[in-house]
Formats: sequence, structure tokens, C-alpha cells
Amino acid sequence: MDTEPSFSFRVFATDGAARQGEITMAHGVVRTPAFMPVGTQAAIKGVHLSAVRAGGADIVLANTYHLMLRPGAERIARLGGLHSFMRWKGPIITDSGGFQVMSLAELRKLDPDGVTFRSPVDGTSHRLTPERAIEIQHLLDADITMSFDECTTWPVEEPAAAYSMRLSMKWAERGRQSFLERKGYGLFGIVQGSVYLALREESAGALVKIGFDGYAIGGLAVGEGKDLMFATLDTTLPQLPADKPRYLMGVGRPADLVGAVRRGVDMFDCVMPTRNGRHGMAFTRYGQINLRNARHADDPRPLDEASDWPSTRNIPRAYLHHLVRSGETLGAMLLSEINIAYYQRLMLDIRAAIANVTFEEFRNQTRADWARGDIAPRT
Amino acid sequence: MDTEPSFSFRVFATDGAARQGEITMAHGVVRTPAFMPVGTQAAIKGVHLSAVRAGGADIVLANTYHLMLRPGAERIARLGGLHSFMRWKGPIITDSGGFQVMSLAELRKLDPDGVTFRSPVDGTSHRLTPERAIEIQHLLDADITMSFDECTTWPVEEPAAAYSMRLSMKWAERGRQSFLERKGYGLFGIVQGSVYLALREESAGALVKIGFDGYAIGGLAVGEGKDLMFATLDTTLPQLPADKPRYLMGVGRPADLVGAVRRGVDMFDCVMPTRNGRHGMAFTRYGQINLRNARHADDPRPLDEASDWPSTRNIPRAYLHHLVRSGETLGAMLLSEINIAYYQRLMLDIRAAIANVTFEEFRNQTRADWARGDIAPRT
Repeated sequence: MDTEPSFSFRVFATDGAARQGEITMAHGVVRTPAFMPVGTQAAIKGVHLSAVRAGGADIVLANTYHLMLRPGAERIARLGGLHSFMRWKGPIITDSGGFQVMSLAELRKLDPDGVTFRSPVDGTSHRLTPERAIEIQHLLDADITMSFDECTTWPVEEPAAAYSMRLSMKWAERGRQSFLERKGYGLFGIVQGSVYLALREESAGALVKIGFDGYAIGGLAVGEGKDLMFATLDTTLPQLPADKPRYLMGVGRPADLVGAVRRGVDMFDCVMPTRNGRHGMAFTRYGQINLRNARHADDPRPLDEASDWPSTRNIPRAYLHHLVRSGETLGAMLLSEINIAYYQRLMLDIRAAIANVTFEEFRNQTRADWARGDIAPRT
Repeated sequence: MDTEPSFSFRVFATDGAARQGEITMAHGVVRTPAFMPVGTQAAIKGVHLSAVRAGGADIVLANTYHLMLRPGAERIARLGGLHSFMRWKGPIITDSGGFQVMSLAELRKLDPDGVTFRSPVDGTSHRLTPERAIEIQHLLDADITMSFDECTTWPVEEPAAAYSMRLSMKWAERGRQSFLERKGYGLFGIVQGSVYLALREESAGALVKIGFDGYAIGGLAVGEGKDLMFATLDTTLPQLPADKPRYLMGVGRPADLVGAVRRGVDMFDCVMPTRNGRHGMAFTRYGQINLRNARHADDPRPLDEASDWPSTRNIPRAYLHHLVRSGETLGAMLLSEINIAYYQRLMLDIRAAIANVTFEEFRNQTRADWARGDIAPRT
């Protein structure tokens, strides 16, 4: 493993608030704006890593919560870390487990020091603290470690959001103290505060004071809607240092990516490409296409004959329709791969548009293509 | 589509009763002895066709019964046939639907002319006759068409087996009459008669009199056990013409393939590589390995470091174990692909051993390797 390069972010071009650049880290370079496919249990669901890589992903995300429960962080460390375990040579980011412990764990008990909970896998008791979350991510050998935070549910009243955010800021400080600095490895803080703009400003200020290698915006895309999400970004992003990467967690739909890049976000992760793929949906230049729909049953045309991804360009819609209707795994596999490739192609185009200072034209054209919708059914 | 070459079988080498050769057909050449991966619904479960091809398969099998019900044979014909539908450029063999209609269809009613049944997919009524089964396979554009036969259950009394076999022989004759001869396309008859050797001889004689491009042995590997299966083969195979390929349907385990090749079988199909892969089992030089077993949890070694298949040689057992235990689709995908590659490698080695007239040495070595079992657990 090459630990020579320092963790660093360089901006090559800007267009309005949008930035194009790259993050250098221990296991390689991530071109930004970047979309990071989600490999919850150290696997991108239904997609071989060779296809994730060929599709254009520089970095993948794995989940601390799932991996600490199975197969266990110490086990992965003994096996040489997550990169050799899952055989992904490039950079890996791990979340801190804060979001999942609140949404998935059983019998969880929050205290000012952390969370105790029961594993749904085998019923064993576990505890996550700010320090343990950092330690687990160290054991996993994540290039980017995320601070442990408390995630509020949605909707949430302002006092509860304030209490939760301030707890997360204390935890961020503790995590920062316990993070073992290694060349090429970075630690990100997470801005919380729900949709309360004053809380977001307070949170961003607190994190910047602590000082991180990058700043994430958490607690969005949880049901608040696009307008509130973008309004929160409009308030939060200017509070964050321009020379550090900004990561909007858990987002999202292609239109959300374009809207957030326009506001200055550099990194994204979301399960949507694979989850929607498993449900028969394809993301394309024409917008989302539901392959389950009977209109595709006799259609020999591919999803998009102009795509540079072979499965998108070559496979008859009629075949994809048949696979989806028949419940064949290959349908989910092909659509998940097609969607990951689409997301990566979108990011490539976004980066090129910013570099050419044509981001607004690109955005208008992309929105027009999506609005135009799918090609007409075959008569 | 190239319809120039005639359907032809050439034997290049023999070693005892074992034969090494090739079958030329409309969509390419099949090296024999051949193992044909099963793509029931026009998809090999969990495996991209690129991996099926890279693993070494020359031909795949698809199921008439499943495809006539969904998406429909006429639809596939309108879409240009099964090759362009599922995007497999090489030869395709289809079964006749006889076996599946007996085991899977609802409200089935057998008469001397065929079978009427209800589709489990949508409740519609369907009918298969010897002529319709041939027509469907023509619509699918199968390189090899199988005669429609009636399959008895196991165990079966001799009178019932005799009645069923004689009905199948009448159907084979009707199928032969209705088969549209096209250059490069072949029709196979299916020997029936359960484990009753006199019935098998009668069936083989009847089929040879009708005359087919190849001869299948059906109704085996249905629960009769290895000894009865091999005894039936010992009686049946000498009755079949040496200049036509012989296909043992639905078989089987690696040891069964070796034993049947030794008796003169040229073709096999079985769901075992993919089905067992979905259940966490890997076929290897060391025999079958159950990745669910806890002994693999901390084992960084691959399944077989001497394998020429990258996933077999490179992926840590601990990772495969984790994927299987976590129910990640990628585990089934990787093991199915590993198993298909193992089966194809076995056939490649079988062909080389026959060509070198070292089949018995190969057989003894292979059995010794399997008997030796997996490498010792890591301490």
C-alpha cells in the first residue's frame, strides 16, 4: 500500500460555485465532483467490482455499522484491511455508523458518550462511541474516515435538532482527537442541524474550528424535499472552507447531483443506482425507464444506442424486460451496472462542463434531455 | 447468421469408449465432450454471458417450456430468435419441454397426442404436442432441437415405463416428420425406458430406425443412483451409432461426467454449477467446498491458487464466506461463475486426456485430487 502521497484536494476549475478537481489519498486519486457507489457490506449489490471500475468509479463507500457486525473490523484488519478483503484497489470511504445505528440497530440506547445496541445479525451487544467509530474505520483502513454523529429522524423539532447537532459536534471533536494521522488518510466532519439554517451555520462553524480534511453535509435527503435540501445547502456551503472537499451524504437522484454540484458540492454517495436497478429501473439520458413496463416487451432497441456503456447500447429492451419480469438475477445485475455507469458518465460530463466553463449549458441540455423523456414506443 | 455449414460430428480421438471431437452447427463449433450451462429462462442464473464464454462454454441450453410461457416463442422469433434476444452468439440447444411440463406445469392432462396444461405464470392454457414442441424450437432458432417426450416419475413400474417409452417413440417419429431441415440445424431423439434395460434397448433401436442427428439419454439422474445410471448407460450407449453425438441429459456431478465420458457420452447439461453456487458451494480441484463453513472466515487464501480462473485464484475465501453469510448477490455471482469455469476446465482436461490417450491416468489423478479434499484449515 502506497502511503507516500499526502491527503490533498486541488481545484482545477470553477464555474460559478461548481468546482472541478481531484482528491489525492492513500490508495489513489478521486476526480471531483465524484459519485461514490455504495458497497454496504463490502460489495456493490449485484455488480462485479471490475464493472464498477470500468464504469468509471474512482472510490467506493462501505458501511462501518454493517462491517463491524459482520465480519467484524478486527477480522478485516487481520485479513489486511478492506482493500485486500473486497479486492478494491482504489480509495475507500467508510461512513461512521451513526446513521445506520439509528435506523437499523435493535434495542439501541443513546447516552452522551455513545450508543449501545444489539446486533440484528446474532443478537450480540455492541457499543459505538466517537473513538470506537474512528478506530473501526482505522481497522478497515478507510482512506476517508467519517466522524461519528447522531442522526435525528425527520421531521424533527428545532430544540431536538439543536441538542442532537451539539452532541454530534462534541463527538466530532472527540473523534478528531482520537484520529491517528497517517499520510494519505483523511478525516471528515459532518454538518448537522436538520433544515434549521441557524443550526447549520453553528454546526459548520464548530467543525471548521476543529479543522477537518473535508466536510460532509449530513441529515439531508431524509424526506425534507428538494427545496428544503437546496435551501440548506445554500446556507451551509458558503460556511465551509473553499480549499476542502464537500460531501453531500446519501444524495441522490441525477437531478439532485447536478443541483448540488451547481452549489459547490464535490462528493456524493447513494444506493439509488443499484437499488433502482434491482427494481427494474434504468437511469438513462432520457430519464428513468421502467423496464417492467409492457411497452418494452417487443422492443428490440437498446436503452440508449448513443451510450458508451456496452450493456446500455447493445442489449434489447425486450430482453431486459423479460429478465425483470422473470425475476432473473441477471436483470438486476445488468440494470445495476447500467445505472452505475450512467451515474459515472454523468459525473464525467459534469467535470468536463465545469472545466470548459459551460456548466449552465450542460445543465440546461441535461434537464431538457431528461424532460424529453424516453424514445417513443415502437409501433 | 451463417447457415452454410452442415450439422456434423467428427471424432478426432478415442480412448477406450471415450471420444474427443467436435460438432459443427449453424452458430459455431462445439468441442466434445461438452458441458452445456443451463440458461432456463434465456439467462444463466447470476452469470454474465461474457463470463460463460470466457469460462470456455461453446454452447448453452435454454428451456422450451419456460420460454413458450414467457416471453413466448413467437415473440422471440419476431425479435430475431434466441441468439439475438439473449445475445449469445454461439450454438444453443433447447430441451423439448417434456420434462418440465411434467414437473412444473399445473392442471396438466396427458393424452396420446400431447399435453394440455395451465401456465403457472399467468394461468393461461397451453398445449404441447410433438409437432408444436418442434415448431417452438424452430421459432427459438435452436441449433439443436430435442424430440418431445413423456417423462415418467421415479420410481416407475416396468409396464408404466414401457407405455411411456413407446408413446415417446411415437412422438419422436412425429417430431422427426415435422422437423424442418435447415443446413446446420440438428434434431436429437431421446432414449427412454427408465432403468429397464430391455426397454432402453427397444427405445434406442426405435430411434436409430427413425434416424436422428444425435441421441440423448433421458430419464436418468432422477433419483436412481449412480450405479443404476451407469448400468443403464452401459446397456444403452452401444446401441447408438458411433458417428452421432450422445447426450446424457441433466447430468451432473463432476464424477458423473467423468464416468459417463468413459462410457462414450459426448454432451452434458446440468444446473448444478449455478444452483450449488447460489447455495455457497464451490467446485474445485479439491472437490466441493462449502463457503458457508466457519473454517473460511479468517482464511485469506483463494479457493485454488493454481486455477487459471481469476476469481478462483485471487479472491480470499474469507471474502467469499462473508458474502455468502451476508446474503450478498455477489457471493452467488462469483461462486456460479467459478463453478461454470471449473466445469469447463474439467471438460477441457477431459478432451486433452482423450486426445493424448491418457484418459485413465487423468481419471485416476482427478479422483485422487477430489478424494484428497480441501487444503487443511489455516491454524
